[in-house]
Amino acid sequence: MKNRIFSLMLLMVSAMSFAQQSEAIPAIGLATKANSNFERIEFERYPVGDSDIEIEILYAGICHSDFMVKNGPNQVIPGHEIVGKVTAVGNDVKDFKVGDYAGVGCMVNSCGECKYCEAGKEQYCAKGTVFTYGFPDRFHGGEITQGGYSNIITVSDEFAINVPKGADIKRTAPLMCAGITTWSPIKFSEVEKGDVVGVAGFGGLGHMAVQYLVDLGAEVTVFDITDEKASDAKRLGAVDYVNVKSTEDFSALSDKFDFIISTIPADYDPMMYVKMLKMDGGELAIVGLPANSSIPVSPLVMQSAHRKVYGSLIGGIPETQEMLDYSIKHNIYPEVEVIKAEPTEVDEAYKNIDEGKVKFRYVIDMQTIK
Amino acid sequence: MKNRIFSLMLLMVSAMSFAQQSEAIPAIGLATKANSNFERIEFERYPVGDSDIEIEILYAGICHSDFMVKNGPNQVIPGHEIVGKVTAVGNDVKDFKVGDYAGVGCMVNSCGECKYCEAGKEQYCAKGTVFTYGFPDRFHGGEITQGGYSNIITVSDEFAINVPKGADIKRTAPLMCAGITTWSPIKFSEVEKGDVVGVAGFGGLGHMAVQYLVDLGAEVTVFDITDEKASDAKRLGAVDYVNVKSTEDFSALSDKFDFIISTIPADYDPMMYVKMLKMDGGELAIVGLPANSSIPVSPLVMQSAHRKVYGSLIGGIPETQEMLDYSIKHNIYPEVEVIKAEPTEVDEAYKNIDEGKVKFRYVIDMQTIK
Repeated sequence: MKNRIFSLMLLMVSAMSFAQQSEAIPAIGLATKANSNFERIEFERYPVGDSDIEIEILYAGICHSDFMVKNGPNQVIPGHEIVGKVTAVGNDVKDFKVGDYAGVGCMVNSCGECKYCEAGKEQYCAKGTVFTYGFPDRFHGGEITQGGYSNIITVSDEFAINVPKGADIKRTAPLMCAGITTWSPIKFSEVEKGDVVGVAGFGGLGHMAVQYLVDLGAEVTVFDITDEKASDAKRLGAVDYVNVKSTEDFSALSDKFDFIISTIPADYDPMMYVKMLKMDGGELAIVGLPANSSIPVSPLVMQSAHRKVYGSLIGGIPETQEMLDYSIKHNIYPEVEVIKAEPTEVDEAYKNIDEGKVKFRYVIDMQTIK
Repeated sequence: MKNRIFSLMLLMVSAMSFAQQSEAIPAIGLATKANSNFERIEFERYPVGDSDIEIEILYAGICHSDFMVKNGPNQVIPGHEIVGKVTAVGNDVKDFKVGDYAGVGCMVNSCGECKYCEAGKEQYCAKGTVFTYGFPDRFHGGEITQGGYSNIITVSDEFAINVPKGADIKRTAPLMCAGITTWSPIKFSEVEKGDVVGVAGFGGLGHMAVQYLVDLGAEVTVFDITDEKASDAKRLGAVDYVNVKSTEDFSALSDKFDFIISTIPADYDPMMYVKMLKMDGGELAIVGLPANSSIPVSPLVMQSAHRKVYGSLIGGIPETQEMLDYSIKHNIYPEVEVIKAEPTEVDEAYKNIDEGKVKFRYVIDMQTIK
């Protein structure tokens, strides 16, 4: 009899689990599109499959690249700096349990089989990475992905990052993009103690780069276009700050740097920073996405003198986990301003970012969504 | 008495030497400018100073960049691939004696004191490199330099390269530009046995790059825009040849190469070659000078995946000596077609180069100038 009751209970649990996996999950989010303010919308997340987890989103960072949804005709929920609490796990999930904290960054799926995915570089998936918002999700009927300015998300467990115990959750969210985007090239270029390095663009990404570089023992110079950020740069450990708008002669800076990371999102001349690198091996890592900047080949040949340029796009999942573990352990976080998940507050935040009035990173408290 | 005669002789020799150093040297050359054919002109070289040598020019290579004089309003003698016999040396010259063979490349002087000159990178002289033709020579009253399509040249001994004994003189001339321009990045990127490498553009520079790379034991693929060059590429040791004009799908080539050198002088898309590099460290060295090609920053960030790009401009004097010694020792030479130093022959050579009809390198036999 006991056994029969137990079996029945198992069957019920099983049925509940099945129900949970087959029914779409109601969600609320803040969406926008071209020429529109943010709007609260109701939508659905796909059900938790065997390898998926469901996350109650606690905080979502506002990244400058979220502005791209303002260029599109379709209403999309942005947000790829997501952290929250695991509220359900699929049958095959081993790395997460209900109650854990988990993060989601710029990607939510990929083929898992191509050489890039196998190498842990899912952002270059040969069959196409499924990015966190505004992309068709071929693993879920081609529905357009919706980002982190929402109360809940389902995601493949392979694209969720374990948030280490003791992490400051609200400041963890921006690490999922601003953290990994700067961490990846800094690690790739093997920056080490004593290196002379530069950070061009001192916003959300730049202030993460400064912290990683200072932590590694490098001598950091920060470049931006205002005097106002100088004190923050020094406070975070930079030894020098250059307002490129008020500087006329950069010759004292030529051949100075082992490494420069450019996080500049607006149009500029990358050759200016190339020439500041040490000849024969200094490296400029570009992570910012200015729409119209380019490096003309002939000046590169004439002037770069074996100084190298490369681009770096976020980072793969294993690298993101490594970054998060390191950041929490070394107490490296973004500086954040928490706002409520109300359309008007997000609109104002966007306005402030657009006008350069934000210090580093806005984070939306998604528990305040109504 | 003997002593007095000896003193008198010394005085005479001294006076002769002084005469030699103070009087301009008559010279003949082949000059051109915009919208003009080549013309034979008579001009003067500066006198042999204490640290100068005089070279009777035997051969001068025609480099694609010589075409730049065709853009200018002033008649200039091009030519920066020069080799000849030393006919006079200044009092302080130690590294050359009359009768030696010497080479001159793209530079004839620099300050010798700045950090670049001190590092043997005279091509980046902080006060301005004096290039071999068409540049004001501040060390000689600002006269415009005249290049190697002439019968004689005076040059600072520090900018002359010792041609090793046994060198094939007529094939040595193009090493002074095509040789060093390809050698420098190949050495800088530390290409070694077994590396998978590419050479984009298979002309004067490209066919030198192939030879150095094959000599180092690398597995070489050549890229050009015609089928006709395939057999030459294979003959020089390339394992593969790709006609990029007739190839539609390059996906099999992505992530394949440790190193690619682009010698392409015409406009193209460098990102095509960036994507062929191995992720995380593959290097594209650009040495060709297309007028309008550029690398847009956003695609670089999105697609380059830590693949690196750099420019390389000829090489410094110590490196040029190293290249020449290596090339002669390893029997690495350009393939040349020798023409007479007659204006019509040079005009025709330019026409053939412009129409892509030349195989590798024309060399002008300067002893045939009349």
